[in-house]
Amino acid sequence: MTDRGSTAEELASRQREIAVSEFFLKNRHLLGFDSPNKALLTAVKEAVDNALDAAEEAGYLPEVRVEVLPVHGDVLLVAVEDNGPGIVEAQIAKIFGKLLYGSKFHKLSQSRGQQGIGISAAGMYAQLTTGRPMRIISRTSPKTKAWRFVLSIDTTRNRPDLHRKERVEWDRPHGTRVEMEIEAHYQRGMHSVEMYLKQTAIANPHVTLHLSDPSGRTITFERTVRRRPALPVEIKPHPHGVELGRLIAMLRATDAKHLSRFLVREFSQVGSKTAARIIETADGNLTGRSYPRRIAHAQAKRLHQAIQKTRIAAPRTDCVVPIGEDLIVEGLRKEITADLYVATTRPPAVYRGNPFQVEVGIAYGKPGGVGLEVADGGRIRRIEAKHASEELVASADEPARVLRFANRVPLLYQQSGCAITKAIQHVNWRAYGLAQPKGGLPVAPMAVLVHVASVWVPFTSESKEAVASYPEILREIRLALQDCGRRLRAHVRKNRSLKKEFERRVEIERYLPHVGEALQRILDLDDRDRDRMIATLDDSLHHSRSTR
Amino acid sequence: MTDRGSTAEELASRQREIAVSEFFLKNRHLLGFDSPNKALLTAVKEAVDNALDAAEEAGYLPEVRVEVLPVHGDVLLVAVEDNGPGIVEAQIAKIFGKLLYGSKFHKLSQSRGQQGIGISAAGMYAQLTTGRPMRIISRTSPKTKAWRFVLSIDTTRNRPDLHRKERVEWDRPHGTRVEMEIEAHYQRGMHSVEMYLKQTAIANPHVTLHLSDPSGRTITFERTVRRRPALPVEIKPHPHGVELGRLIAMLRATDAKHLSRFLVREFSQVGSKTAARIIETADGNLTGRSYPRRIAHAQAKRLHQAIQKTRIAAPRTDCVVPIGEDLIVEGLRKEITADLYVATTRPPAVYRGNPFQVEVGIAYGKPGGVGLEVADGGRIRRIEAKHASEELVASADEPARVLRFANRVPLLYQQSGCAITKAIQHVNWRAYGLAQPKGGLPVAPMAVLVHVASVWVPFTSESKEAVASYPEILREIRLALQDCGRRLRAHVRKNRSLKKEFERRVEIERYLPHVGEALQRILDLDDRDRDRMIATLDDSLHHSRSTR
Repeated sequence: MTDRGSTAEELASRQREIAVSEFFLKNRHLLGFDSPNKALLTAVKEAVDNALDAAEEAGYLPEVRVEVLPVHGDVLLVAVEDNGPGIVEAQIAKIFGKLLYGSKFHKLSQSRGQQGIGISAAGMYAQLTTGRPMRIISRTSPKTKAWRFVLSIDTTRNRPDLHRKERVEWDRPHGTRVEMEIEAHYQRGMHSVEMYLKQTAIANPHVTLHLSDPSGRTITFERTVRRRPALPVEIKPHPHGVELGRLIAMLRATDAKHLSRFLVREFSQVGSKTAARIIETADGNLTGRSYPRRIAHAQAKRLHQAIQKTRIAAPRTDCVVPIGEDLIVEGLRKEITADLYVATTRPPAVYRGNPFQVEVGIAYGKPGGVGLEVADGGRIRRIEAKHASEELVASADEPARVLRFANRVPLLYQQSGCAITKAIQHVNWRAYGLAQPKGGLPVAPMAVLVHVASVWVPFTSESKEAVASYPEILREIRLALQDCGRRLRAHVRKNRSLKKEFERRVEIERYLPHVGEALQRILDLDDRDRDRMIATLDDSLHHSRSTR
Repeated sequence: MTDRGSTAEELASRQREIAVSEFFLKNRHLLGFDSPNKALLTAVKEAVDNALDAAEEAGYLPEVRVEVLPVHGDVLLVAVEDNGPGIVEAQIAKIFGKLLYGSKFHKLSQSRGQQGIGISAAGMYAQLTTGRPMRIISRTSPKTKAWRFVLSIDTTRNRPDLHRKERVEWDRPHGTRVEMEIEAHYQRGMHSVEMYLKQTAIANPHVTLHLSDPSGRTITFERTVRRRPALPVEIKPHPHGVELGRLIAMLRATDAKHLSRFLVREFSQVGSKTAARIIETADGNLTGRSYPRRIAHAQAKRLHQAIQKTRIAAPRTDCVVPIGEDLIVEGLRKEITADLYVATTRPPAVYRGNPFQVEVGIAYGKPGGVGLEVADGGRIRRIEAKHASEELVASADEPARVLRFANRVPLLYQQSGCAITKAIQHVNWRAYGLAQPKGGLPVAPMAVLVHVASVWVPFTSESKEAVASYPEILREIRLALQDCGRRLRAHVRKNRSLKKEFERRVEIERYLPHVGEALQRILDLDDRDRDRMIATLDDSLHHSRSTR
């Protein structure tokens, strides 16, 4: 050891526990709070996710109000109010004032929230940037008054710091309202709160959403169906997705006294017959009456292998609730003007034991078509299109717009890192008549909607902006895209031939001057004759091809 | 509420705290454990990061042994051993058996590890996939025996579950050895353990690394310099990077009795004069003797604004230690055969109050050059190149290889989501004579090394595979790339003209048949004359351009 170096004892004195709130405060970009633009959207999204989940779980048709109001300078007030069942007094502080606290993490069931991080992280960001606590009003029944909480998060301990708590009058029969002041920018365009709500409306046609923006404008996205989607059923893990270590932990933790009871109770799709077959395959002195907690490592390993070898029914499908092909087409049609709409809902599949289901919808073409027309003399002309940045269908020479959804929640950031984008890029769209640069998105007047629903969506970060690239998920998305692509082909074909011809001619025109120079030398022409020759060639090429 | 819906009380009964270890176990892809290929590399990386940090902090020249040995089936034994100072008995269990525990999180100082998650997460993955506990041997001095710990992680409580603890003989004077059995694949190529160690050697020329792989092969990357890099100095936050909410929290937490003392003690680059100026600017009844804990919200806000308005010296630069231009060139030269090497180290800069520093090194060209040559008659021919997949310089028609480093650690995954890649894509490489598809990496026989060093590297996920795109970081990388690009230009120019000409001719040849058809109609040629005309045109075009 040299001078300035530390001994093991000195190093030890610096070791400390890190509160999860400190961790995420320092790494707030992991939660989607890396810039004032994104922070607003993330805060709204976390609150709306919770609002929709709560209303649906309680059996209400969700109606959510989002208010974004100017306070001063860069500070905005964000308020989100729902008509859900409300939150009981004892839970309010922890739900909003503690990270990693919630009801959705420990169960396998499709919901928008799953981590127990989002809303308290939004409050933490508010606190960090404006120093202001969150304000929550919640009422569980018209028979009782509402509770009003003012609280912040003690970030060094990850626990709520309650400023005030009181009974108040509130003119809603039940529901929750959360308010926070955050440093943020209200922006327009693809990453705006409005776009987020618009896409939410597409994937949730049973929901009504209201938005009041800082300019005082109010927009309502009205529900188009009054039928609630089925409530997803909560499931146990599927035995084929359980790793050895997890099996060992489950054996240690179970209350079941017998191995066969353990298998039936702790897993989905295992009845007593399947359990018996697993145990028989495992052998190693295991019987249906073996005591789970006493099973040794070597035996657990045999059991794990036996599970892999045994045929077990695929996970039940009612744990995942898709939007459905009809409603996807209806949603697209309502918000996007296009020539053709197609949608596919795949059957449920499984990754790492988690059931999931993929849906794809495509809106193709729009007034103005591919933006090309055949003029007199066979020349193809480009039609001027109005700017499409606010629209959800791209114009003909732009990459297709991608609308990504996970458990009905629109994903607006990290498009390039998302399994959905990768799957779209891996499909050969040329086979369906679309242009596609190598490894890129198809270039077409098109919006591609992809919905991944799962009891546990594997996101690439806690900000839940992109789906991780598990091979099984990539595969299902690809199959759904290909199905839609095939149905698109006939429609695309006529636009394609026009476009291809146009591109060929543009390239020919680019090379004519070079040909002219060469001809001039070979045939010994003067400049005027050369130019005439080029003009004749040009006309001739256009004419010959357009009359074919 | 309708049937099947839950009341607020029912929902409340499901609310639970989530242990951070449970969270990451379920989200293990966030930590880099999403596939058996990646899991091996991540486990090795976390252990090597810790090994290098420990040895350097204690003032030793690091020497690290990595062993990857087959156990059975898909199970590998991973062992990493260092010559660091060892770990004192009381800390071993927590460091390896608890997530979010460590010495590096709470200080602002450049180190490889920073989160206190990595090594315990690797152990958790081992436990999950093989059910086997970690084994640790550590010795702090030749005067004492070593400690041997066998432990796993109680994931529902995030705390170590100690299986055994004993004094043992160990033939090293000091250091730490960690062993775990994990389900993993040993692969070759760009994402291999070998490539990771090779790149580690490039960025850490003072380190010696040994690798034993499952086939029994042993490779050593020997250090090329015996001089240790300077130890980075720990700093306080810079006042310009502190948000209002954090300032308020700091005011509440400080031991300082006076505001001026608080400013001087808790921040870097604030002396008593600067403190006085800040307080004067803030006004609002604040004086140097105000009691920090009693400062109200409105006053804190004035203080925060005053800090932003006051000129304060840039952060001191010795908190970040770059590799240095000479050592980057030396490292590249040692591992990569190329024609030209350039490197740039930027001065330190700041994002969100955190000092950071960017370095870029480029190795350009390799035996075989751009893979083109001028043959007789002016025709340009493609030279067959041997396959370059194992090499770090791309071949002429492939995108440049990107070698990304953060605090001297190679980043092997999530290239497309990394600020480093984005910065390379945003530079206009055409200005330096390189081909570049729109929005893509330059296409050239080239390796681009980028090193981001910081007291706190903002990673895009806990797996620390990509740097988040803070604008200040993107800007510094771009400036460094541009500097290297300018020095590359002269060298590239001669290769470029050859390449450009080649591409032009390929395109001309593609269109000659169309021209031939048109000429045939205009001049009324028969097929033989048409073909002769095309051949003459072809020769003429090649000749005329090659003699220009």
